[in-house]
Amino acid sequence: MIDIGDEVSLFKVGDEVFYAGQIDRPGSNAERQAVDERIVGPKPKSLTFAEAAALPLTVITAWELLFDRLKAGKDEDETLLIVGGAGGVGSALIQIARAVTSLRVVATASRPDTRQWCLDLGAHAVVDHSGPIDEALTAAGERAPKYIASLTHTQAHFEALARAVGVQGVIGCIDDFKGLPIELLKQKSAGFVWEFMFTRSLEQTPDMIAQHQLLSEVSRLVDSGALRTTLTENLGRLSVENLLKGHRQLESGSTIGKVALDGF
Amino acid sequence: MIDIGDEVSLFKVGDEVFYAGQIDRPGSNAERQAVDERIVGPKPKSLTFAEAAALPLTVITAWELLFDRLKAGKDEDETLLIVGGAGGVGSALIQIARAVTSLRVVATASRPDTRQWCLDLGAHAVVDHSGPIDEALTAAGERAPKYIASLTHTQAHFEALARAVGVQGVIGCIDDFKGLPIELLKQKSAGFVWEFMFTRSLEQTPDMIAQHQLLSEVSRLVDSGALRTTLTENLGRLSVENLLKGHRQLESGSTIGKVALDGF
Repeated sequence: MIDIGDEVSLFKVGDEVFYAGQIDRPGSNAERQAVDERIVGPKPKSLTFAEAAALPLTVITAWELLFDRLKAGKDEDETLLIVGGAGGVGSALIQIARAVTSLRVVATASRPDTRQWCLDLGAHAVVDHSGPIDEALTAAGERAPKYIASLTHTQAHFEALARAVGVQGVIGCIDDFKGLPIELLKQKSAGFVWEFMFTRSLEQTPDMIAQHQLLSEVSRLVDSGALRTTLTENLGRLSVENLLKGHRQLESGSTIGKVALDGF
Repeated sequence: MIDIGDEVSLFKVGDEVFYAGQIDRPGSNAERQAVDERIVGPKPKSLTFAEAAALPLTVITAWELLFDRLKAGKDEDETLLIVGGAGGVGSALIQIARAVTSLRVVATASRPDTRQWCLDLGAHAVVDHSGPIDEALTAAGERAPKYIASLTHTQAHFEALARAVGVQGVIGCIDDFKGLPIELLKQKSAGFVWEFMFTRSLEQTPDMIAQHQLLSEVSRLVDSGALRTTLTENLGRLSVENLLKGHRQLESGSTIGKVALDGF
């Protein structure tokens, strides 16, 4: 923090912070940004800036999806299925679900390295998502998940997820597509929820400060050792060349965890 | 109750009861039925059998939709929009929401008699659903509903409901159709849930007894005067002619509340 506004009460000049910002305000790829304190948390002291920078977008998405959208209880004896466990949000969600809830966490992955990454982050089990996911769950002896976090390729997986989801369960989603055969969920009285982490700031909701609160909690969990950064590669200083390199890597669709740039 | 099984503990022979039954067991249009006690409640003492018979299917649907699917809190200062307020489920839902919650209840109707029926049942306001419902809400000065119960013509209304629903709100639904442009809910991080009142008995869920509990609560609310039957017409004894008459009336799509048959 190099300066604060008159009404800022959560932070002071000199504080080290982390945040994901707003989608409708300038700021990405910039050296200085103005940001609303209600969506900012204290940077974990045990992490470098690059390690911390890898977290906010994904931990906010994962936390909101699990607690605000799927409305998972912290003490439930139920299963959470995470489709695409090795991606940025999946890597955060596996850890948060293990650190903060009693849920059984089953992730999906399709390669040996992504599978191992999910297990290292704490997943109780990993199943393959290259075939029908409901069949993979059954073959693994897993019960029907009450909660499904469908983080990627939702449209391709939807029929299998509708078969897999527990009765009265919920499928939560973050990716982009048009239309779903939502009628497949009717007989189970199941639901479908969206998580979009820019909703609170974009719509200036009365509970916008929930993002400050969850980032603060994540920061404590990181410093206590319960969560770790999902940074897998530091691409170097913020330059046109390194930005291009980072974007190309993300577009490959095979990134594990998160990449970050660091310094100017 | 003319007989009970060995494991029945909630009722005894001679008890007067009401229930909606299971969709996968014989029983409709029959003089005697075998029914699982976990989906049966004590008949309200203040009602005739025909008046009581009009209730279970709709009150179970309305109660589960409001509390188990939309997960509305009883003390929330939020708005519940009920699309199709004068139908069977709408008539039950208006009353339950008024009797048990602090929600503002806005129903939709399109005719003078259905509009008045909704107001008589306790709706705070009624808006017209023959045009775009979001525009009708705005014109009436209503705030965005956190909860929408879309009880009929969901597919036709969906775009307007997606515009109308509050940020982080939920649309719940009971009717039949194929496919929805569910992406319209993404920017608001809103959700969509199904209520199908036969789910619990069909899937033999561990919480199946919730239907006994809610029917018992409804029975108490009726006898205390907080809820009334939605029976609008008693078509006479259960005969082929009267069944035909009842079905034709339902198929007209303009029934207010519920019709019932009574006696053999």
